[in-house]
Amino acid sequence: MQPNNASGPWYLDDLKTGDLFRSGEYEMDANQIVAFAQQFDPQPFHTDLEAAKASMFGKLAASGWHTAAITMRLLVETLPFYKGLIGLSTDIQWPRPTYPGDRLRVECRVLEIAPSRSRPEQGVVTVETLTLGQEGEPRQRQITKVLAFRKPE
Amino acid sequence: MQPNNASGPWYLDDLKTGDLFRSGEYEMDANQIVAFAQQFDPQPFHTDLEAAKASMFGKLAASGWHTAAITMRLLVETLPFYKGLIGLSTDIQWPRPTYPGDRLRVECRVLEIAPSRSRPEQGVVTVETLTLGQEGEPRQRQITKVLAFRKPE
Repeated sequence: MQPNNASGPWYLDDLKTGDLFRSGEYEMDANQIVAFAQQFDPQPFHTDLEAAKASMFGKLAASGWHTAAITMRLLVETLPFYKGLIGLSTDIQWPRPTYPGDRLRVECRVLEIAPSRSRPEQGVVTVETLTLGQEGEPRQRQITKVLAFRKPE
Repeated sequence: MQPNNASGPWYLDDLKTGDLFRSGEYEMDANQIVAFAQQFDPQPFHTDLEAAKASMFGKLAASGWHTAAITMRLLVETLPFYKGLIGLSTDIQWPRPTYPGDRLRVECRVLEIAPSRSRPEQGVVTVETLTLGQEGEPRQRQITKVLAFRKPE
């Protein structure tokens, strides 16, 4: 699968229900996992290789928020929305942890497009984002509402 | 409001529906906002003070994922669950951005406790987490399912 190479900016009217976009890959390593967790999720199974072995994960695992943050980075590189990629809300599931050495990539599908009634220049696009590991298993599933804008006249 | 000072570990049976827990404060500054965004959400309104002025935010704004990550940090300090704070899923809304100088704090309320049928030693606790600014306005609203474990016999 090739990453999406379309160039932006993308306007509201450029998007269609069912559109599918694919990101490039991002490899997670243990140092990054520990550094993120020390700052934002300081729990032994995210910060300490030895302590993680005795945890329910059995080995060092990335914070779910790290998986979410890397997903955002891949999305920013993949979806060049006009005025930027601005999320209003998101529902996230973490069916499996991310581990050192995992190569994450993102598949993003447009589920729904709702033009705004009160603000005709914008709309809300609902997208499903799957963050997959190298063997295609989802590490994160996400349904997100993002803003999109029409091309200025 | 005082932060929660209870010591852990907390077991599944220690929690009751309606329990409310409060974190300490965390002040966001522009350098942290830019550093986070350069790594995980590289968009001009999160990384560039000047470019942000021309964006829909009107000034530098934190990535919603940064607000979420700081929320997790405050929760880890506030909720000393036995075996750690492990989220299964979460629904997030960002009603307002977080800006430099904002002092974030978290209020977390237990909405529901569901003991597992198949795994009697554990259960799923649904919590509502509000991430508030210094004037009490929510920057993030979250409904999260977290694992909790019974005290080993």
